[in-house]
Amino acid sequence: MKLLKDKILKEGKVLSDTVLKVDSFLNHQIDPLLMKEIGDEFANRYTDEIITKILTIESSGIAPATMLGLTIGAPVVFARKRKSLTLSSNLYSSKVHSFTKNETNEISVSKDFLSADDNVLIIDDFLANGEAIKGLLDIAGQAGANVIGVGIVIEKGFQQGGALLREQGIRIESLANIKSLENGQVEFFE
Amino acid sequence: MKLLKDKILKEGKVLSDTVLKVDSFLNHQIDPLLMKEIGDEFANRYTDEIITKILTIESSGIAPATMLGLTIGAPVVFARKRKSLTLSSNLYSSKVHSFTKNETNEISVSKDFLSADDNVLIIDDFLANGEAIKGLLDIAGQAGANVIGVGIVIEKGFQQGGALLREQGIRIESLANIKSLENGQVEFFE
Repeated sequence: MKLLKDKILKEGKVLSDTVLKVDSFLNHQIDPLLMKEIGDEFANRYTDEIITKILTIESSGIAPATMLGLTIGAPVVFARKRKSLTLSSNLYSSKVHSFTKNETNEISVSKDFLSADDNVLIIDDFLANGEAIKGLLDIAGQAGANVIGVGIVIEKGFQQGGALLREQGIRIESLANIKSLENGQVEFFE
Repeated sequence: MKLLKDKILKEGKVLSDTVLKVDSFLNHQIDPLLMKEIGDEFANRYTDEIITKILTIESSGIAPATMLGLTIGAPVVFARKRKSLTLSSNLYSSKVHSFTKNETNEISVSKDFLSADDNVLIIDDFLANGEAIKGLLDIAGQAGANVIGVGIVIEKGFQQGGALLREQGIRIESLANIKSLENGQVEFFE
């Protein structure tokens, strides 16, 4: 997706060979018009599928997932990273390790909003080691839902998450796939 | 906002005289089409103002704030509840107590995304005791930004947050204002 790649090249900050900071439009400040374009692009990539539920994880997955939901008219469910007192005990849950934040969270989704009747598209902002996506797949599996695929805004293709998931037969659509962050430069596949 | 009030009456769950659960469309599952209507309504309420930045807090403020941003073409910044390793030390921060979750979080916003040049509209999902809004006002104040007002999806008008903030001269627009949750019934003002 050219618009996204151009934005990454213009505003992304390469902090190390593995860390790309895109706080100006995705992870802290959000560019709503770009998010709408991203939602439309996910809809185009999966136009052959009937999606009944979009599953993501707080917080940075919410904006692109909600824009996709606006485009296709499907509800979004975001997994929570901690149990809230207003969430019941009626939960699917899974453990997810974040290498960026160096912590393990339990993520959870209410059984009220995901079921065996759902065709689920999983959306997230980044795919690196694939930990968050594995947790969301685990939760969808507990619900008995059919996972159509995964939509990722930025894949770090030089890390192993995407390859491991594709080897399992999971369809992954990444709108920008990064080959390398070496020497402070962002290089894309393709 | 009739569409929102109807949704609350249909899907909201009154858990006690003070707790309303709207997990089916706002706080866990998100209804993107309703969020777009909410964004449009905030834009209408503040159509007389020039907004350069929308300020909210993760996670449930993100969807309505981003839809408002789509409508008016302004960027959204969401305050983070914990420091992330990829956020720099270049932060405005404030302490916020959540009575719902019974915990105090430090919320923070990067100095890169909020400045004295900004006309800020603050958006959040709920207003009860006003703790989150006070924290966001504190952060906007640290930035020297001009706060135009506050947009709230659901105000619990029977709690004191809204009254205290309005007494300080802060403009607050709530799309649904709840008078009472007694006897398991939602009653609105107006």
